[in-house]
Amino acid sequence: MVLITGAAGRIGSTLRSALSQYRLRLTDRDLSDCEPKPNEEILEADLADFAAMRQAVEGCDAVVHLGGNPSPSATWWDLKGPNVDGLYNVFEASRQAGVRRLVFASTNHVTGMLDERGEWPVGAQGPIAPDSLYGVTKALGEAMGRYYSENSDLSVVCLRIGWFTGEHQLLDNEGWLRMWLSVPDLGRLINASLTADVRFGIYYGVSANTPMRYDMEKARTELGYEPIDDSSKLLADRTDG
Amino acid sequence: MVLITGAAGRIGSTLRSALSQYRLRLTDRDLSDCEPKPNEEILEADLADFAAMRQAVEGCDAVVHLGGNPSPSATWWDLKGPNVDGLYNVFEASRQAGVRRLVFASTNHVTGMLDERGEWPVGAQGPIAPDSLYGVTKALGEAMGRYYSENSDLSVVCLRIGWFTGEHQLLDNEGWLRMWLSVPDLGRLINASLTADVRFGIYYGVSANTPMRYDMEKARTELGYEPIDDSSKLLADRTDG
Repeated sequence: MVLITGAAGRIGSTLRSALSQYRLRLTDRDLSDCEPKPNEEILEADLADFAAMRQAVEGCDAVVHLGGNPSPSATWWDLKGPNVDGLYNVFEASRQAGVRRLVFASTNHVTGMLDERGEWPVGAQGPIAPDSLYGVTKALGEAMGRYYSENSDLSVVCLRIGWFTGEHQLLDNEGWLRMWLSVPDLGRLINASLTADVRFGIYYGVSANTPMRYDMEKARTELGYEPIDDSSKLLADRTDG
Repeated sequence: MVLITGAAGRIGSTLRSALSQYRLRLTDRDLSDCEPKPNEEILEADLADFAAMRQAVEGCDAVVHLGGNPSPSATWWDLKGPNVDGLYNVFEASRQAGVRRLVFASTNHVTGMLDERGEWPVGAQGPIAPDSLYGVTKALGEAMGRYYSENSDLSVVCLRIGWFTGEHQLLDNEGWLRMWLSVPDLGRLINASLTADVRFGIYYGVSANTPMRYDMEKARTELGYEPIDDSSKLLADRTDG
């Protein structure tokens, strides 16, 4: 059983079909619009409620933790419940329940100031430089992941997920295009992250865009993540057509 | 005016005389045992109370943020008020009040797992590896410091302070001796951190111990911190005597 937190969000709702080979438990605050498929069960739960998260992870082998406030302009007061307390709750509940793999949705905003200054390629080994308090809470998640991976049976994969628009129109913003993650590549990324033989790692999660802003070598060698799509080709095709 | 948070703690109470050239505002939850000197004023305040911290930083040029739960065995529930909410309160209040320099007391526990595995020398540029949730909250402080230093007028010096026993007996634990920070070196370190021309930096704060576990070059060149004491010499002198 794989738990997806934030299952009603943009990434969570797209991911369900990419993980259809697993039994899935979907959790979010409001799942009233969610129609579970035969391999899925649903459970409404608030990340900030430890008892609810403890129940959500029970019996799960892996957790894909996408839940939280996704806004780079969120205030600390907006972030504190879902992205700080909720983060601890998911990690600690997973440890208590004997979960083996936690895939944590971090963000490119953890190194957003390097992006803004054009200090490319940005690697996951170098110093962080958050561009927002949102990015700071994701850096906290990476620190917590490292702690749990070395002090419990939980192994942790942190993915600095780029710009994910789902099936929607790709916008023509050059900066964002370089951070684009396609729907099929999201599936490849999470599937690779669930099965890779790693204890802990931080990786950028973007497609095979040209030019590439991030050092993707580590994701390739450690996770076996081979992205295929390229935002520049997609844009060229659309312009031609 | 320099604000010292956690002024009643082991480091805070020792630091007062080392910073006697400054006007000092001392804050802590309980200052009933604190006798202010002519250059000092005292203000009882809880880190987790934003309004109290906003008042505490008013009119200050610099903040030395030592406050928080100092225990590596503290639970998340113990840490959340002082080390998480309190952390944000001190940074954000300092930004609002126009403070120019925040010196943040981080800890060697941010890379504690590297220490435990003997992966020396440990540098402040490399990946973190917290050995405790306490260490995780200090990593959060470093991330927050980086964010504020690049997105406000606040410059931030993070010090991974080692093993500080104040004037008390030095214990003969080899591992701890390598992390020792003497009383005079603490004064040198904090004075250097208050005046160094840096926007942001992370440095180990220990004495000139041999053998040295940490890469101290960055503290020397960027802060101008020149530690003098050496735990191994102190121990040798004591054994001789």
